Amino acid sequence: MIDQRRLPLEEVYISCRTWQELGESICNMTVRGAPALGVAAAMGMALAGRTALAEAGSDPVHFRSLLQDATKGLFATRPTAYNLPWALREMEGVWRRQDLAPEDIAAQMERLALQIYEDDLASCHAIGEYGADLVEAENPVILTHCNAGALATAGYGTALGVIRSVFARKPGLHVLVDETRPLLQGARLTAWELIREGISMELITDNMVGYFMSKGIITHAIVGADRITANGDVANKVGTYGVSVLAREHGVPFIVAAPCSTVDLSLHDGNGIPIEERDASEVTGYRGERWAPYGVRVRNPAFDVTPARNVSAIVTERGVARPPYQESLKQLGAR
Amino acid sequence: MIDQRRLPLEEVYISCRTWQELGESICNMTVRGAPALGVAAAMGMALAGRTALAEAGSDPVHFRSLLQDATKGLFATRPTAYNLPWALREMEGVWRRQDLAPEDIAAQMERLALQIYEDDLASCHAIGEYGADLVEAENPVILTHCNAGALATAGYGTALGVIRSVFARKPGLHVLVDETRPLLQGARLTAWELIREGISMELITDNMVGYFMSKGIITHAIVGADRITANGDVANKVGTYGVSVLAREHGVPFIVAAPCSTVDLSLHDGNGIPIEERDASEVTGYRGERWAPYGVRVRNPAFDVTPARNVSAIVTERGVARPPYQESLKQLGAR
Repeated sequence: MIDQRRLPLEEVYISCRTWQELGESICNMTVRGAPALGVAAAMGMALAGRTALAEAGSDPVHFRSLLQDATKGLFATRPTAYNLPWALREMEGVWRRQDLAPEDIAAQMERLALQIYEDDLASCHAIGEYGADLVEAENPVILTHCNAGALATAGYGTALGVIRSVFARKPGLHVLVDETRPLLQGARLTAWELIREGISMELITDNMVGYFMSKGIITHAIVGADRITANGDVANKVGTYGVSVLAREHGVPFIVAAPCSTVDLSLHDGNGIPIEERDASEVTGYRGERWAPYGVRVRNPAFDVTPARNVSAIVTERGVARPPYQESLKQLGAR
Repeated sequence: MIDQRRLPLEEVYISCRTWQELGESICNMTVRGAPALGVAAAMGMALAGRTALAEAGSDPVHFRSLLQDATKGLFATRPTAYNLPWALREMEGVWRRQDLAPEDIAAQMERLALQIYEDDLASCHAIGEYGADLVEAENPVILTHCNAGALATAGYGTALGVIRSVFARKPGLHVLVDETRPLLQGARLTAWELIREGISMELITDNMVGYFMSKGIITHAIVGADRITANGDVANKVGTYGVSVLAREHGVPFIVAAPCSTVDLSLHDGNGIPIEERDASEVTGYRGERWAPYGVRVRNPAFDVTPARNVSAIVTERGVARPPYQESLKQLGAR
């Protein structure tokens, strides 16, 4: 997979041969984005199936205990995105089967991981089409935050999937990309994807969203999601909540694009979502450049929760959910 | 003066010997902050008085035409902060006087520049005390944006003046500092000032303000101002508007601290305030580190306008203005 930490100035690909290597790539954000983390976790379990087979042979108890370890290890990598535990549970549905021998389990896990990859790609295209139906303006100006693009998914993207589908219908589309501190996924990844796609875009800092909202320039705000709860609350990259408040203040539709694998019906609302706090060094500078004084204290929550009341629509691969989400998400078949 | 571009990791002092050198230091942000720009412009005119005297001797027409050039040159450096044209007008009140000889004018301009410096320092202390009266919480947690500190003024600061005065009364004070992209005045300058002062603080990125507001942690938001219009609209560093919307959403008092020299009664509202757009390179990276793809388009407005309806109070050296500002600002004697 491509090393997202080094984009856009370097395109470097890496290979993971064990679930531990893949887990490390999740922790250090070589791969990131909720749907991509689901795919990566599934691939990690497929790798674990291979190595467990090599280590445990046909001993099913030892084999399953190794897969249990891999599940726990991958689960512990990052806490917020729901697609990751979702994919681990899908894979667990295979390796828990008592009617299959270890070699059959390993083979089935590999097929399921590839299926999850293909399903995610198809979901993104469906999300794109459903989402594009919501953008009626002749010359839309869409704000997006962070990267919910091809890089964050199996391909095409969720929020950027909608933007790609809008662009296919309305070449006059313009996109404002906020840089998304601290890891600059907007400035690095979303800008890179849009430029390659030939979509008109401008980069701004996160704190300029209010300026452009107040000028009446932005017609839609579209973002991805890391976890959506039963009531429609949305955890996503930190800063999403602020964008949603500004969107509501200015009557701009605030649209969330995510596959059903992001929906966690076991949580009633966003208060239950674990929010990852990452290292201070992400905030005190970027890569080689440090700018904060030494000894400074830092807070670094990586996500925030946008309450359902700020969300105009949730676009999934099965259609568009509207408030009240408690009902509409269930109707779309989210589990 | 200290070179603010190199803080906090280097403390380098520079001297300006002509108004042109000083103008360049304003353009490149060696010196910044609305009240500091007022003081700098006054000092620049004092320098212009000296050099004009050397060049024009006792020819009053030539002498005044050189001062007219300096006024125009300094006026053109940066458009948004009102203290800069305010100070130039104060100085013009001296050099337009037909009853004074060039050498007397030059001497009086020097005295007035020093007076403006001393008045600004006194204003900051008065603002600090008036502002501290507004912070009633036992253990306040104050959010501030950008740097409205000693560095942005003759000393002590406006928003940071209030924070310093609160700290003197309430040692349990805690301050959240947002980094303030693109030039990182919060991460570099405000963090540096607060650490030197021993005030408890944490650094966050701009897009984390919503997270901490939603957690109910922030008791007050206090910022400086670059220009305040007759109706109480406030131009300040870009991002201020977004903070004000979040503060209102969460019932957090949003307090603006600024001397009366920031108040521009010639403008009815914020629509008339010129907003500087700065170079794209500020957004595509920081100093030696570039992270945006080459060829990216950028917007970089340096300020935004917070409408008076989002402003809980404007603290000046003459007291606290409350809505409706149209009346209260005039009553305080703003001109």
